Amino acid sequence: MNATPLADLSADDLATLLEEQRAAYEELRTRGLKLDLTRGKPSAQQLDLADDLLRLPTSTKDSKGVDVRNYGGLEGLADLREMFAELLWVEPEQVVAGGSSSLTMMRDCLFYLTLFGGVDSERPWGHEEKVRFVCPVPGYDRHFTLLESLGIEMVTVPMNDDGPDVDAVAALVADDPSCKGIWIVPTYANPSGSIVSQDVAARLAAMPTAAPDFKIFWDNAYALHHLTEEEAKSADILTLASAAGHPHRPLMFASTSKISYAGAGVAFLAASTANVGWYLGHLGNGSIGPDKVNHLRHAEFFGSAQGVRDHMAKHREIIAPKFAEVDRVLTERLGGRDVATWNTPAGGYFVNLDVVPGTATRVVELAKAVGVALTPAGSSYPYKQDPDDTNIRLAPTMPPVAEVTEAMEVVATCVLLAAAEKATA
Amino acid sequence: MNATPLADLSADDLATLLEEQRAAYEELRTRGLKLDLTRGKPSAQQLDLADDLLRLPTSTKDSKGVDVRNYGGLEGLADLREMFAELLWVEPEQVVAGGSSSLTMMRDCLFYLTLFGGVDSERPWGHEEKVRFVCPVPGYDRHFTLLESLGIEMVTVPMNDDGPDVDAVAALVADDPSCKGIWIVPTYANPSGSIVSQDVAARLAAMPTAAPDFKIFWDNAYALHHLTEEEAKSADILTLASAAGHPHRPLMFASTSKISYAGAGVAFLAASTANVGWYLGHLGNGSIGPDKVNHLRHAEFFGSAQGVRDHMAKHREIIAPKFAEVDRVLTERLGGRDVATWNTPAGGYFVNLDVVPGTATRVVELAKAVGVALTPAGSSYPYKQDPDDTNIRLAPTMPPVAEVTEAMEVVATCVLLAAAEKATA
Repeated sequence: MNATPLADLSADDLATLLEEQRAAYEELRTRGLKLDLTRGKPSAQQLDLADDLLRLPTSTKDSKGVDVRNYGGLEGLADLREMFAELLWVEPEQVVAGGSSSLTMMRDCLFYLTLFGGVDSERPWGHEEKVRFVCPVPGYDRHFTLLESLGIEMVTVPMNDDGPDVDAVAALVADDPSCKGIWIVPTYANPSGSIVSQDVAARLAAMPTAAPDFKIFWDNAYALHHLTEEEAKSADILTLASAAGHPHRPLMFASTSKISYAGAGVAFLAASTANVGWYLGHLGNGSIGPDKVNHLRHAEFFGSAQGVRDHMAKHREIIAPKFAEVDRVLTERLGGRDVATWNTPAGGYFVNLDVVPGTATRVVELAKAVGVALTPAGSSYPYKQDPDDTNIRLAPTMPPVAEVTEAMEVVATCVLLAAAEKATA
Repeated sequence: MNATPLADLSADDLATLLEEQRAAYEELRTRGLKLDLTRGKPSAQQLDLADDLLRLPTSTKDSKGVDVRNYGGLEGLADLREMFAELLWVEPEQVVAGGSSSLTMMRDCLFYLTLFGGVDSERPWGHEEKVRFVCPVPGYDRHFTLLESLGIEMVTVPMNDDGPDVDAVAALVADDPSCKGIWIVPTYANPSGSIVSQDVAARLAAMPTAAPDFKIFWDNAYALHHLTEEEAKSADILTLASAAGHPHRPLMFASTSKISYAGAGVAFLAASTANVGWYLGHLGNGSIGPDKVNHLRHAEFFGSAQGVRDHMAKHREIIAPKFAEVDRVLTERLGGRDVATWNTPAGGYFVNLDVVPGTATRVVELAKAVGVALTPAGSSYPYKQDPDDTNIRLAPTMPPVAEVTEAMEVVATCVLLAAAEKATA
């Protein structure tokens, strides 16, 4: 293994490397691969862990005697709200248990803000001349798509290891009343793996904002999704915001999509009781209540908050080796070459790979041509535009380990080939 | 039983009647009743019919091999869409299977129309100076609440036995481009029990509208909810509209809320394929897919479209006697008195009771004071304002028959007492 940085190679050595990688790439083409690292989906083996759900609930009533099969109970099943309140470090009355998608809850909050305004809005956001959102990058593509669909302008700030660049955020929101919100994935961020520190969270909660109704969309999708035994604890944003005099600023979201079933879990919203009332008030115009049978199914399955944590340890056993494999192949194939950096996340669903600037699109294209689907380059940026064309999001949870290995060998070859192409161009 | 119309009674006889009803009412007060005829909820006995759902699905894959536990499949499970396409007389590709609430699907359509406009809109409805909806009355309170929440002005037309007064509708929509839609519950309407005839449906589908993007919200909530063996067939609004050159006019909604579980069923949207694409396009910005496990659970439970029809016969056996009891008590107690008219619906969930104009509010108030909860007077009208204060919606499905009897005795006494009060005032 030659570990000389590409920049230090002679023209001849570079040409040799290019030829080697071209040959390796052509060999890959003959394999007829069909591999997919695009989306953060759990594997069938992970889903199997929750298959007792298929025979639950055993009862049709919750612990308060409510028949879960009938209409009603807009806020969701009390037992399940209590369980997840403990897991999210909030009070049960601050929690709504909803349908199967936290993304839909986020969308609904954006719709309500746009159509009706928030508890602290002067008018509906839709009546403002302009609404802007701060988007730490790289970030979650679906967050950005949602904002784009509503015509909300996106302003980026860097996502650092301890969360968004909070000085940049504070500067943006201090004087611009059109800056109405920020997306944060606080724990094991998609895709950077970052964990928002207590300090950064406290500053986000307390920073002065020109908009009276500034909202932190705190998407805690991976709150419990640890890849090591050292488990990060998410900052308690609701308490921090309340203590700072901005109790209605955060809207927290979570779900069991990557705990029980990806498509048939339960989503949660947590916020100030005023925000909960606001959310339920609008929701109640178009819903008579969520699927409480699925709520009870989950409450029986987990048994307790500790039951959820124990369940997550089983997920870790399945997926941690896949993340280790991503790191192993990248290290062995690209280590010392100075053509890529990547993180080794302590949780979540993604590995963030930064390749030679200007080659991310080429890498994805090369991989696709030999049967390895990667998330399109730029996906982790608003409007799908990565200004440096450097970022690639890898999602290794879904395929079996052997396929992760095979796919990562392809990725490594493509990264090196694209880098050599660029260096010799 | 004295069956003389109140108007024909002498002053003395009227005074006697008033005293008798007052005495009867005071006796009711001593019973300590706690009965509820407010909402169209299925009874526990009806919900029990579907309890095999609690042990389904037996598989985790649909007939095409899709793992229903994972993300994806925005349009819903193919097997279930095919089953309900047959029941709704549409093509599978015209059907979306969603979450547990058709009301939420209607709300989402209104949100999309308001925020983004429809496939045939010149601009989002929210950018129009005014948007109006035609509302046949009496109608479903939640339909009206939804429109009110969005600031959509409601214009009423009478709901006749064969559907809305279509001359009145046609006149309203012909010249007024702000008239953008109409609500229709086509089969066993809430609360009138009306069934929209083929002729009325054809005229609604074909009538010229000043708005290019006029929408019929065709809420077929009770399509299969027959109370007799003579089963009404809903008019095929999609085909009618398509034949009339307005394929995108109707948006059809249905659900299994009153077939399987009220709170944990599956909701459906059916429309032109362009409308389906429009709906899914917007939905996809905030959802990765519906609960396909619940879709498969339902597909396995019913087995086929005929399985759904057979299941509905079991519901009929449970609830038809309750509707018969409502009619029996009203006939025995109020027959010939000329103080009320009511329908004997052939399906659906409601009995529409019209009392002496000006007394509906009083009747509901009197009933409440002795422990019988009725839907607030006016609920079946926009802004909860029944101009004649005459309409009361009775929902007899939830309580056991004995309670229906007891509650209806109270209703009859209150109707008669309020009428006597008014006649002697």
